Amino acid sequence: HQLSAQNQDGHASSVGPGWTKASCPCCTSKKVEPLVLVKLGENVRPETKRWLIRLIGAPQKDGGAALLAHPGEDASGDIIMVSAPCCTLLKATEELGLCRIYQDDNMEAFSYKNRHNFKNSDDMEIFLTLAERQYIVKYELDGLWAQRDLRIPGLPDSYTLQHRDNICEKLGSAGVIEDMFPLHNQDKLRDLSEAWYSGNQLSQPLDSINEYFGSSVALYFSFLDCYTWSLLPPAMLGLLITYFSGRCSISSSGVKLRGDYLGPAGYSHVIQAVFSMLWSTVVMELWKRRSSSSSYRWGTSQLAEHFAEPRPGYHGVLGVNPVTSRVEPLFPEWRRTYASCFLPFMLFSTVLVVLGMLCFYWGEAKMQKLHKDWDSLLSQTFLYMPSVVHIVFTNVLATIYKKVALSLTEYENHREESAFENHLTAKVLVFTFFNYFAVLFHIAFFKQDIPMLCKRLGSLLIVSQLVNQVTEVVIPLLVDKFISVTHRTDSEDEPQEDKFRKQGTMPVFPGLFAEYIELLVQFGYLSFFSCVYPLTAVLLLINNLTEIRADAYKICKLFRKPFSQPVTNLGVWQTAFEVLSFVSVMSNCWLLLLSPQLQKLFLEGGISSTKTILLAVLVEHVLILVKLVLAVLIPDEPDWIKKKREHTEYTSMQALRQVIVMSKMDTKITKSITSVDVVQKTNPLVKDIPKISRKME
Amino acid sequence: HQLSAQNQDGHASSVGPGWTKASCPCCTSKKVEPLVLVKLGENVRPETKRWLIRLIGAPQKDGGAALLAHPGEDASGDIIMVSAPCCTLLKATEELGLCRIYQDDNMEAFSYKNRHNFKNSDDMEIFLTLAERQYIVKYELDGLWAQRDLRIPGLPDSYTLQHRDNICEKLGSAGVIEDMFPLHNQDKLRDLSEAWYSGNQLSQPLDSINEYFGSSVALYFSFLDCYTWSLLPPAMLGLLITYFSGRCSISSSGVKLRGDYLGPAGYSHVIQAVFSMLWSTVVMELWKRRSSSSSYRWGTSQLAEHFAEPRPGYHGVLGVNPVTSRVEPLFPEWRRTYASCFLPFMLFSTVLVVLGMLCFYWGEAKMQKLHKDWDSLLSQTFLYMPSVVHIVFTNVLATIYKKVALSLTEYENHREESAFENHLTAKVLVFTFFNYFAVLFHIAFFKQDIPMLCKRLGSLLIVSQLVNQVTEVVIPLLVDKFISVTHRTDSEDEPQEDKFRKQGTMPVFPGLFAEYIELLVQFGYLSFFSCVYPLTAVLLLINNLTEIRADAYKICKLFRKPFSQPVTNLGVWQTAFEVLSFVSVMSNCWLLLLSPQLQKLFLEGGISSTKTILLAVLVEHVLILVKLVLAVLIPDEPDWIKKKREHTEYTSMQALRQVIVMSKMDTKITKSITSVDVVQKTNPLVKDIPKISRKME
Repeated sequence: HQLSAQNQDGHASSVGPGWTKASCPCCTSKKVEPLVLVKLGENVRPETKRWLIRLIGAPQKDGGAALLAHPGEDASGDIIMVSAPCCTLLKATEELGLCRIYQDDNMEAFSYKNRHNFKNSDDMEIFLTLAERQYIVKYELDGLWAQRDLRIPGLPDSYTLQHRDNICEKLGSAGVIEDMFPLHNQDKLRDLSEAWYSGNQLSQPLDSINEYFGSSVALYFSFLDCYTWSLLPPAMLGLLITYFSGRCSISSSGVKLRGDYLGPAGYSHVIQAVFSMLWSTVVMELWKRRSSSSSYRWGTSQLAEHFAEPRPGYHGVLGVNPVTSRVEPLFPEWRRTYASCFLPFMLFSTVLVVLGMLCFYWGEAKMQKLHKDWDSLLSQTFLYMPSVVHIVFTNVLATIYKKVALSLTEYENHREESAFENHLTAKVLVFTFFNYFAVLFHIAFFKQDIPMLCKRLGSLLIVSQLVNQVTEVVIPLLVDKFISVTHRTDSEDEPQEDKFRKQGTMPVFPGLFAEYIELLVQFGYLSFFSCVYPLTAVLLLINNLTEIRADAYKICKLFRKPFSQPVTNLGVWQTAFEVLSFVSVMSNCWLLLLSPQLQKLFLEGGISSTKTILLAVLVEHVLILVKLVLAVLIPDEPDWIKKKREHTEYTSMQALRQVIVMSKMDTKITKSITSVDVVQKTNPLVKDIPKISRKME
Repeated sequence: HQLSAQNQDGHASSVGPGWTKASCPCCTSKKVEPLVLVKLGENVRPETKRWLIRLIGAPQKDGGAALLAHPGEDASGDIIMVSAPCCTLLKATEELGLCRIYQDDNMEAFSYKNRHNFKNSDDMEIFLTLAERQYIVKYELDGLWAQRDLRIPGLPDSYTLQHRDNICEKLGSAGVIEDMFPLHNQDKLRDLSEAWYSGNQLSQPLDSINEYFGSSVALYFSFLDCYTWSLLPPAMLGLLITYFSGRCSISSSGVKLRGDYLGPAGYSHVIQAVFSMLWSTVVMELWKRRSSSSSYRWGTSQLAEHFAEPRPGYHGVLGVNPVTSRVEPLFPEWRRTYASCFLPFMLFSTVLVVLGMLCFYWGEAKMQKLHKDWDSLLSQTFLYMPSVVHIVFTNVLATIYKKVALSLTEYENHREESAFENHLTAKVLVFTFFNYFAVLFHIAFFKQDIPMLCKRLGSLLIVSQLVNQVTEVVIPLLVDKFISVTHRTDSEDEPQEDKFRKQGTMPVFPGLFAEYIELLVQFGYLSFFSCVYPLTAVLLLINNLTEIRADAYKICKLFRKPFSQPVTNLGVWQTAFEVLSFVSVMSNCWLLLLSPQLQKLFLEGGISSTKTILLAVLVEHVLILVKLVLAVLIPDEPDWIKKKREHTEYTSMQALRQVIVMSKMDTKITKSITSVDVVQKTNPLVKDIPKISRKME
């Protein structure tokens, strides 16, 4: 049965023979596509590699991963290529809770038993996306745990596996597995990049991105797209305001605004502020609708991660899970809640940020004074001291914070990978955001210096975006072209294994955190300070149009392909954007209060400053109320999705009523009944069972 | 099969023969307990009554209600007693989505097919509560609709039923059905009242209340109980503050406070305010936990109202419901959303309330001036004019508002009874609340007269609570004792029918709206103005301890028994309490700002009024943030309920995967499989089907 891949269509099948045998006969296929490459350490002995290959190929009931493995060139090489047979993929699809197209063209949660009623369930390349297949391989490998105490051949006794030890973690710490990454498919990648960024396309091929990079990456680009287009209205408003107030003088070095930053139109900035506050809520609600229909289309709307196996790092006392009745480590909820109280640490860090900033200002003032007193070359170099110290301090703090946040999140011991990610992201995000905005907030709320805020914002928008683009794209591009290029050109006669091995030399994809935080900071500039600087949206729009292409190029060409867990929505990022949109009301009202023009207006109207503040507070509360009402009135999902969801709920309620007895009574009867069902599906000739049962009735 | 009730135990079974025959043989029982009394109009002809009795007794597939009916004394009497056979009750239990105790002692959504695996499913008196059985009778009667065009015997042609007409509505408008109410069970009522209010019990027999009056009433009393006990901490704090500040002089006419209402302790009112703001969030979160465990215990946690038949008043174009695939009237969601926009009307009404109040103040000032100028008897009577006009105006406005709100809600055409109730309640609630608080808000926010607010609040708390108690209990009690008593004494030899008929002479229970709004207004006094008047909680605690008993007495003795729909939680009232708890932060911060003592303190500290306001705004935002964090951190349901819920989710996901094919493929096969299942359950001898299917496999 050891069928070798035929060299028919391109790279995928050009791997020679040597794949392990699939454990079930239905899964043998002529063509095996290598999905994931496991890079072994240098000093791994052949018996360890053989053991690992056997483990990957063994059926799941024997503690294996039921995957297909290929030793590369020979048994002593340092790579293992892994692929997955049909049945393993299908079973994992059910376990992950992915939805697929049913025969009646609806999306239904996939069920292995009923696989024949799902469309294309016999052709994995159509049924599952490439990203999903690769994720499933990783999922199965990560889920390997020792069913009993076990010595690994070729390793010292100190690495003996204990019962329930995670095998991949252990092998990682023993230096056997050095790395694991999904393989690029050059043909598909070429098609994707053509449709994505090489032409002048306005829309992005989101479904193809989902197919190749998975739903998390596709959702990011979908959000980026949605957000960019939604910048059009505020950009147009900003242009109109700038044009009619006509006070914006553009110098060659950038955009500079005069001290009295407000146009003669007077209320233009009020209009801008109110518009941007309501706009942000509407955009977020529309995005939620779009996100829910995307996740429906991609089959990730009913993910069942909390019913699947816990994530590798999860530890606890072995016991029966009350929800799924499986034996697995249990960790009480209250201990997690207790551990989640990282607030003091976060507060402490933000205080440090503020202190650092204040020290910087103090130091700068001191140095200015020193320089004025001394006026020497030494004092001139001293002038840069505070900035340097502050930058070093901020970076050190950020590094420490990230480390502590990571270990805190690990200490919280989340059961699901997504919960872990969300908690970690939330922690880092708050700090990073605060770090970005500390200076602006300081200017806006303490110094209350609107012209300075305006100047700072303008320079930040232009300079930091430019710097960002350069560091994100140009430098990796140059590095890629001139340094790595020599040992990464694909020659035609090179063996496929070496081509795969070369992908391992590319840098690891750093994840979407940096991309999202960039968007969040943009969104912050726009919603917090838009009334100060009406051109913000225009600049962001221009930036994002290039950003889409740059990000696409980056992920396609400059990095190793990342694994991508199926996700339903943006998770914690969605919350972050929504929170920002509400906090921005306060910031905007405050800035309007400070605006010299409005103050003058109130002064002329004979309204006391106390009354002005009360008015601002009133306006703030009313705006928050309106935003809340808007958020409630716009449904989070389109009507057709709601109906489909309710239909699923209804069907599963009905199903529960039918099946609850079966699953609880005698497992034998349950099995027999479902096998009746399977028999009837697969063999339409069997028609006598209904008659028998009716007679007995 | 027409078995007559045996006169064995008390009232329930003392009804003589004459019940219609149950349509299925398993439902014939020796004892039929009359559950609901249908009161007919005076001029109803015997053939109409016979037709109605036949309709009530007919099986559901023939368009009947599948209930049991009894014509009272004879065919010409003006009552029909209705009861329900076992199978109808069980089927309705499944349709309503009630949970019952499964054989493994968990609560599971009841399934008629698997009824034998639920405990006590053969004895309806234990399996369903009395309130549930009575509600099911009403549910079945309300759900009667004409399956084709039909002439009702004994009625003119103008009352001919059209296809899909609701029969009970039609009969109501034709004057055939005058009234419909559930019957009291005197034995059970006696037991309940003894356990509830006649002794010195501190706790209420909530499970018995649920058994007799249903979950909506039981939840109200559970909330009242929870709320009353939670008043203890603020009451104790209030007493402490009053004692230590020692400024509260109690005169004989009530509690009066001096102009400088704040004790020398200085910050005591700040403590009081902050405490009460955090307290309200904690109480609401704890209540949610209690509520969710109550509804789990009472089997109402998984109500499936949105999958059941629509409510009687629902209209629309006949079509296939995309969720349940049943043919029923459909009404597009967007039309409802459009109709829901009653905001302009509500705004208009509140403006009218404010205008009325302003006119009142203006009128009073005018009259005072007039009286001072003229000083005659006429002018003295004129002094009362503004108050009288204002009271009349307010009442007329409230009546009109309620009528408009009702017709608006009907126009919105909600599919579920609970949605209808919630929308109506929400509309009336906002107006009523505003009406109650308009004067206090006026004093607090516009007049900014704290001593007057304090005086007004004190008198409101004492006088209005007294008036409430008197009108709610004493007057109905007196009316009951001295007016209705003559024709409502039960004589032993009186026929049972007359005793039942007499229950119809009692006043209709006015519903829980008045009770809830009283609690909400209390909660408003406490949370909005607690920092002004520290004894609020003490007075409310005393009031509520009597309120519990008074409400219990009222519902047991003074009113006709109400129908009670099963409910999961407080619905819109919960939201109202939570919103109030957040709005109270603004009110409290404002009152603290106004407090003369704090102002003096700030003045002495040399802090400008602008800065004071900004500080207050900052404090407000921080408090709201803390409340939000608290609300998120305290889980809405206890851990064990969460696990049970997730377990149900998991099981139903599994079940869906097993059944989805069956229900979608061939309905014949589905039936056969479930009948296999039923056969195996009922007849343990049949064991060969599994073998057959295994062979075929």
